[in-house]
Amino acid sequence: MLTPSTRALDIGASPIRSLLPYADKAKQEGKHIFHLNIGQPDINTPEHALERIKNINHPIVGYGPSEGLPVLRDTVARYYDKFDAKISMENVYVTTGASEAILFTLLATCDNDDEVIIPEPFYANYLGFAHLANVNIVPLTTHLETEFALPAPGEFEKLITSKTKAIFLCNPGNPTGQMYTAEQLEVLMSIIKKHDLFLIVDEVYREFCYDQTFTSVLSFRGIEQHVIVIDSISKVFSSCGARVGYLITKNKPLLEAVTKYAQLRLCPPYFGQQLALECYHDADLYIDAARQEYKIRREVLYNNLKQLPGVAFYKPMAAFYNIVKLPVSDAEQFCKWMLTYFVHNGNTVMLAPANGFYFNKGLGQKQVRIAYILNSNDLNKAMECLKIAINQYPA
Amino acid sequence: MLTPSTRALDIGASPIRSLLPYADKAKQEGKHIFHLNIGQPDINTPEHALERIKNINHPIVGYGPSEGLPVLRDTVARYYDKFDAKISMENVYVTTGASEAILFTLLATCDNDDEVIIPEPFYANYLGFAHLANVNIVPLTTHLETEFALPAPGEFEKLITSKTKAIFLCNPGNPTGQMYTAEQLEVLMSIIKKHDLFLIVDEVYREFCYDQTFTSVLSFRGIEQHVIVIDSISKVFSSCGARVGYLITKNKPLLEAVTKYAQLRLCPPYFGQQLALECYHDADLYIDAARQEYKIRREVLYNNLKQLPGVAFYKPMAAFYNIVKLPVSDAEQFCKWMLTYFVHNGNTVMLAPANGFYFNKGLGQKQVRIAYILNSNDLNKAMECLKIAINQYPA
Repeated sequence: MLTPSTRALDIGASPIRSLLPYADKAKQEGKHIFHLNIGQPDINTPEHALERIKNINHPIVGYGPSEGLPVLRDTVARYYDKFDAKISMENVYVTTGASEAILFTLLATCDNDDEVIIPEPFYANYLGFAHLANVNIVPLTTHLETEFALPAPGEFEKLITSKTKAIFLCNPGNPTGQMYTAEQLEVLMSIIKKHDLFLIVDEVYREFCYDQTFTSVLSFRGIEQHVIVIDSISKVFSSCGARVGYLITKNKPLLEAVTKYAQLRLCPPYFGQQLALECYHDADLYIDAARQEYKIRREVLYNNLKQLPGVAFYKPMAAFYNIVKLPVSDAEQFCKWMLTYFVHNGNTVMLAPANGFYFNKGLGQKQVRIAYILNSNDLNKAMECLKIAINQYPA
Repeated sequence: MLTPSTRALDIGASPIRSLLPYADKAKQEGKHIFHLNIGQPDINTPEHALERIKNINHPIVGYGPSEGLPVLRDTVARYYDKFDAKISMENVYVTTGASEAILFTLLATCDNDDEVIIPEPFYANYLGFAHLANVNIVPLTTHLETEFALPAPGEFEKLITSKTKAIFLCNPGNPTGQMYTAEQLEVLMSIIKKHDLFLIVDEVYREFCYDQTFTSVLSFRGIEQHVIVIDSISKVFSSCGARVGYLITKNKPLLEAVTKYAQLRLCPPYFGQQLALECYHDADLYIDAARQEYKIRREVLYNNLKQLPGVAFYKPMAAFYNIVKLPVSDAEQFCKWMLTYFVHNGNTVMLAPANGFYFNKGLGQKQVRIAYILNSNDLNKAMECLKIAINQYPA
């Protein structure tokens, strides 16, 4: 039959992008939309990095090494010194965004039908990549009421089977905006070792921690062979379109396995790697300013949330997301209603319904993910909009 | 167990890259290597396209649409007018190189264990992507003796089972350098329709046909819903590192399936798309010059091959590859020997053993793929080197 594959039809639409048709219609009607639905930073990409792109004088944009440009791999390895990671360039593979690092990690650690335990709610695309790789995600539910705290090791252990190959964390968390501390992570180490599991940690938001110091799992001693870290320049350096990420591990056999997939797609993008290289020069200056800006926005969001009647929320520790429970029976319907029927001074707000971040059906129905990626002025206006919308919502 | 997945270990090393350790050692010893092993053009990327990259003034390198920048999709659709393709931008998805287009095509057309018939020898990475997607390649052997001609429809039909979802061609062919004519392709149409199969054609070398006019399968009427074309700027515009390819089809349900995978990896690289956009301005001028250059090199290669004792070869019609049978019992061993033990005036030659392009073990053992991607002067020197090497080879 000349129809698409069943597996393609099985993949759900992205919860972040599923409302796009409603948003397009709202824009056509002349509404302005405050986008709090997507983690696309509005902070400028480092200027000196964009300058580097303009100064490239190589006449042929040829294939590069499958593992990435050596000079970039070395630069990234040195960047990790401040996290006490003790890695060298051999441990760093450049990927086409963190997306590809996630896919390569699943392919290189798991065979078909193997299992990976992931606390939910989680970044929805993990599910898509697991589906692509024929890996089964085993969710471990965390709760808004306990501010999405990392479950105790015993909770993970209950889910371990002979098929379990890894525990997969996102730290700091998308969509929760929470950070796991060194102490919380350390107690997981014993079951990682006991059951010989990989520990995969997506740390792409590591530079945006507002209250406590971030601890990378690359700094833990004694489990070096278990750890795989996923990273990216997309959020840290506001360079989502460059498509540059990293897969980092000290496990050599695993790197050799990843090499197979890396060679298959030939190489990561050349221009993105050039941009990335320059991003790491004077990185702290840039990152500190970005962190300060997001921290201010977090306060703006928090102060606005306090004024919303009937919402349940917490103050996120990191990243630029917040899961918020709204006083509505179905947050997705509410989000559609805001785009379709609501307008205030020509404006409306787009949010990401949180149900798409849960694996188990029925969870997070009243929750939304708010990305605080607008400047304070716009964020205030957006939250004012949301407040009025909640009051006007007929349901 | 803390070991890589079995599937990763199952993937063979790339035949194009498997000799790299030998090459590295040769370079360390001070030898100069003429690289005839990889399809990395030495022709400059269009200068005006590189200029465009320098004139980008957008301050944020943000996510773009998953399907690619609309202006690029439209430009590509118009480029296809000269091939009588009659497509619009909706039919063109921008991918991260042809590599990603191949993967998306397999995922969106085939379920696990479905089958795709491919004439061998074929581009070795097809096998890797099929493995990744759990798709079974069913090879249909073609032969150097018949200049790798497209097998008759009956030969394909013998291989069709209930699991067959597609016939996959590379036209013009890598590694054969041969072109299928309109007449040869047309006779395939009836079985494509009769068995309701997809026809996937990798046309990345379409602009380099030296003797006859190229026919894109996008120009065939009556089978529009069956056809998927894979394309790339890598070879045509000597931009391999930009990582920009295309998946093109008029089949809307298939495009919707592809969208799922496209959204999963967020978007193709921004800078590469900007480069691509400018490549299509005055494209014919650039492409004609490149084609002329490769045509000259083809003659240089052909004239040199005629002087080699005991080789079997043909004059390739297209692309920049030639499969050549050497007077040795094992071409892979010969290639290693050239890198390890042979030197002439400080030079040696690197070739791709052709066995890696055959699915069936034992085929192509005496064959190599020669990529004529060096200028005539270097190509002459490389072939002189090869001639001496064949004479000196002890086996």
